[in-house]
Amino acid sequence: MKTTHVKEKTKIKLKNPILIEGLPGLGMVGRITTRYLAKQLNAKKLGELYSPHFPYYVLVNKKGSVRLLHGTFYFWKNEAGENDFIFLTGDSQAQTIEGQYDVAGCILDFAEKHDVKTIVTIGGYRKEPEETPKVIAVSTNSELLKKALETEALASPAGNPIVGTAGLLLGLARFRNINALCLLGETRGYLPDPKAAKSILSILQKMLKIKVDLTRLDEEIEKSKKIVERMREIEKRRETYSSKMRRMEEERITYIS
Amino acid sequence: MKTTHVKEKTKIKLKNPILIEGLPGLGMVGRITTRYLAKQLNAKKLGELYSPHFPYYVLVNKKGSVRLLHGTFYFWKNEAGENDFIFLTGDSQAQTIEGQYDVAGCILDFAEKHDVKTIVTIGGYRKEPEETPKVIAVSTNSELLKKALETEALASPAGNPIVGTAGLLLGLARFRNINALCLLGETRGYLPDPKAAKSILSILQKMLKIKVDLTRLDEEIEKSKKIVERMREIEKRRETYSSKMRRMEEERITYIS
Amino acid sequence: MKTTHVKEKTKIKLKNPILIEGLPGLGMVGRITTRYLAKQLNAKKLGELYSPHFPYYVLVNKKGSVRLLHGTFYFWKNEAGENDFIFLTGDSQAQTIEGQYDVAGCILDFAEKHDVKTIVTIGGYRKEPEETPKVIAVSTNSELLKKALETEALASPAGNPIVGTAGLLLGLARFRNINALCLLGETRGYLPDPKAAKSILSILQKMLKIKVDLTRLDEEIEKSKKIVERMREIEKRRETYSSKMRRMEEERITYIS
Amino acid sequence: MKTTHVKEKTKIKLKNPILIEGLPGLGMVGRITTRYLAKQLNAKKLGELYSPHFPYYVLVNKKGSVRLLHGTFYFWKNEAGENDFIFLTGDSQAQTIEGQYDVAGCILDFAEKHDVKTIVTIGGYRKEPEETPKVIAVSTNSELLKKALETEALASPAGNPIVGTAGLLLGLARFRNINALCLLGETRGYLPDPKAAKSILSILQKMLKIKVDLTRLDEEIEKSKKIVERMREIEKRRETYSSKMRRMEEERITYIS
Repeated sequence: MKTTHVKEKTKIKLKNPILIEGLPGLGMVGRITTRYLAKQLNAKKLGELYSPHFPYYVLVNKKGSVRLLHGTFYFWKNEAGENDFIFLTGDSQAQTIEGQYDVAGCILDFAEKHDVKTIVTIGGYRKEPEETPKVIAVSTNSELLKKALETEALASPAGNPIVGTAGLLLGLARFRNINALCLLGETRGYLPDPKAAKSILSILQKMLKIKVDLTRLDEEIEKSKKIVERMREIEKRRETYSSKMRRMEEERITYIS
Repeated sequence: MKTTHVKEKTKIKLKNPILIEGLPGLGMVGRITTRYLAKQLNAKKLGELYSPHFPYYVLVNKKGSVRLLHGTFYFWKNEAGENDFIFLTGDSQAQTIEGQYDVAGCILDFAEKHDVKTIVTIGGYRKEPEETPKVIAVSTNSELLKKALETEALASPAGNPIVGTAGLLLGLARFRNINALCLLGETRGYLPDPKAAKSILSILQKMLKIKVDLTRLDEEIEKSKKIVERMREIEKRRETYSSKMRRMEEERITYIS
Repeated sequence: MKTTHVKEKTKIKLKNPILIEGLPGLGMVGRITTRYLAKQLNAKKLGELYSPHFPYYVLVNKKGSVRLLHGTFYFWKNEAGENDFIFLTGDSQAQTIEGQYDVAGCILDFAEKHDVKTIVTIGGYRKEPEETPKVIAVSTNSELLKKALETEALASPAGNPIVGTAGLLLGLARFRNINALCLLGETRGYLPDPKAAKSILSILQKMLKIKVDLTRLDEEIEKSKKIVERMREIEKRRETYSSKMRRMEEERITYIS
Repeated sequence: MKTTHVKEKTKIKLKNPILIEGLPGLGMVGRITTRYLAKQLNAKKLGELYSPHFPYYVLVNKKGSVRLLHGTFYFWKNEAGENDFIFLTGDSQAQTIEGQYDVAGCILDFAEKHDVKTIVTIGGYRKEPEETPKVIAVSTNSELLKKALETEALASPAGNPIVGTAGLLLGLARFRNINALCLLGETRGYLPDPKAAKSILSILQKMLKIKVDLTRLDEEIEKSKKIVERMREIEKRRETYSSKMRRMEEERITYIS
């Protein structure tokens, strides 16, 4: 395999589709959000994106077969609304600089082919989150940004970098006449963070006028809460230890000087 | 040299050939197994695979000449059975991400050219092995997997990654209508591990209905056993030392707090 | 995006234009100088340089939109003089070896298209600067070098390496029949260094017979002076600490031996 | 610049030319040898090799101009002998895996164009050298190897790797019907090592039936001897210090256990 490409799994005509992208990244926020949406809406597979810039291993699946790392496009026919949806999630982001630009370009080619006029990219934003993680919004289009800020989303400070596919898609969309919005959920980023995903889902439901059941996500949040608590305890102990060591060191120096 | 390519050494028509691949990797299990098979069956050279993604050095051979790092294809005419065999082993795997995909693609091109319908890739699986190392099997084809599991091979847990050429060949074979099976022998992975190779050879002989003499492999196993014992002793001593250091550190802290 | 390219923003005929390049680098000297010049002369946007070799993130701007990292060409119609000017500054340099050569080549293509016959590249030179940072000059053309040395610029010792775009443009200009001069301002290099930029601006004004107001740059220098002072104090304390530690260590050794 | 290429400086017909290559590497042995030969024989510039795989900086030369890193081909018309000579030395080797293969391929293209039938590559071999550094020889051609071994050169143990251009040229020469010999001088490798170069020059003079004055090389050897002595002293002191520290550590442990 020499080039990044999409293998289409079905031929379908979509109605003013909006592409929602969430690949693995900080706190897995993008991937959790997009997968959850696709699953709850019972979205169907549209195609698979393969690239020689993904890591060079395969994953064993439940049936004892394997699969190359890839991205998956799903589609959902939104009978009640104006826009159908395409979802893109996957196993990995590209591993090299040039690969990142290449994969983002390939995603946009596929979007253009399906007449996508709006893209929403989702990711994490490293920050000790408050009780309910906040969501930061940026957009290539002021209308779209305004719409996001009318929900709970907050404007981003200038100078902020948005790393990887979620950012590049916005940067490159401008050259394709596609409007793009990026939503970043606050997350510590160390562990998969379904709570940040929930904050984003809340905004997406309002903006896109869709409705999904969040029960199962709440279950995930409960589970992850326990893991985080355990990790915090470990951290606290380590800090206590470090401060003791530091004190000890300072005393030694005081003694010598 | 700008592209990965195969230099064919002989023109030959093979009968429903099966390709068995084992390049250097964890515990050298793939390479030891495939080389042993090719040698015992007196397989002949079919071609050499060169690539600008292999490391940039040459190796001096016995005659004082050198050779570029490369892969070697061998063939064996299996007069008694239904399938002839192609073996692929070599000096190295590709050193870059894109190179790994490129080399795997080139191997599959060559396989297709020879009408290969089945590939078996061989590698190591990092685990402290039991007395007889176990073998894990995964396959792109449920029939082939079933056949492997009817021998001593075990199913792999889902989510397992298979790194490098042994994995990519399976992942990419799916797009070529080639069935592929991967056999991974348990190994500590630090040293060439002929014992893991033996476990795999036992399975291959049953599955492929071939018979090879294992005497020389047993000799290799004896030799490597001694090396492993020596290394374990060194490790044990280091652990004793580390645990003393840890205890010492803990006492210091207890004292201070 | 697969290739480095320039998006032209306007079609304009320039009169014997001189290209002045300053991308981010040591002490940000090139970027500060070139941006300051372009701003003070009220230069207009000529084009944007995009490349898959730039880092794979986007930056949020003031309006809550984002931009891909890129270089920006500005032009200034110098009504009073013989030469119009093109300025190139930007967000980043290419991140890979091959990318550096590629981007420098693309800049020269653009320069040739606009009939540029002279390029001035600007950068930093790591050295504890004196009260007024000195400026080192090298050139592909002895006339141009002589002109620079007739101002306050100093000749460079032989063997000095000039890293990145500022250097490669000179190296590659030779094959395009373009004369190129590189001016490097002495800088500690840790922080954006407007003082080094001022030394270079002083030379550029004489050489290119242009005149810009330096008031705002002096303000920047005042600000950065305070930051440097604070950093020096921190460093001093660290050194005191280290020398104590070293003394302590030496005493221990003396005691043991 | 996107491709590795040679800029020819002169058109000349050479008589059965032999190419001698020595780029920077271990102990700079290849470069010192080849430069010395070219200089003593008063060889003339034949061409320059440029590549986007060389490091991305330029070097300032004595006249205050700069040059891109490159390789330089020189030629020498050997009126008295059967073979003219081409020498290749330069500033750097390629910095990436694929770049190494690409540059070696470009050198061989140039060699073929000039009907080169024999190549000698020169490098260093890491080993604490004896009073007179030994030289290891390997060759793609048994005749050529035999000739080398009839001088003071020694055969190489099998399995030895030869890294970089000196090795790849041999590996790739085989596909071009060019015979190649590699001579590696024993060197500690830390510093430019004119003594290893002298050992190789002694062999080259016999094999190639050429004669060069070694006076200036002897001067270099004297200079480098002093540097090595100083470095050894520093090393010795460091070792003394380390062994003290180790003893101290052991005593502590003994005390605790």
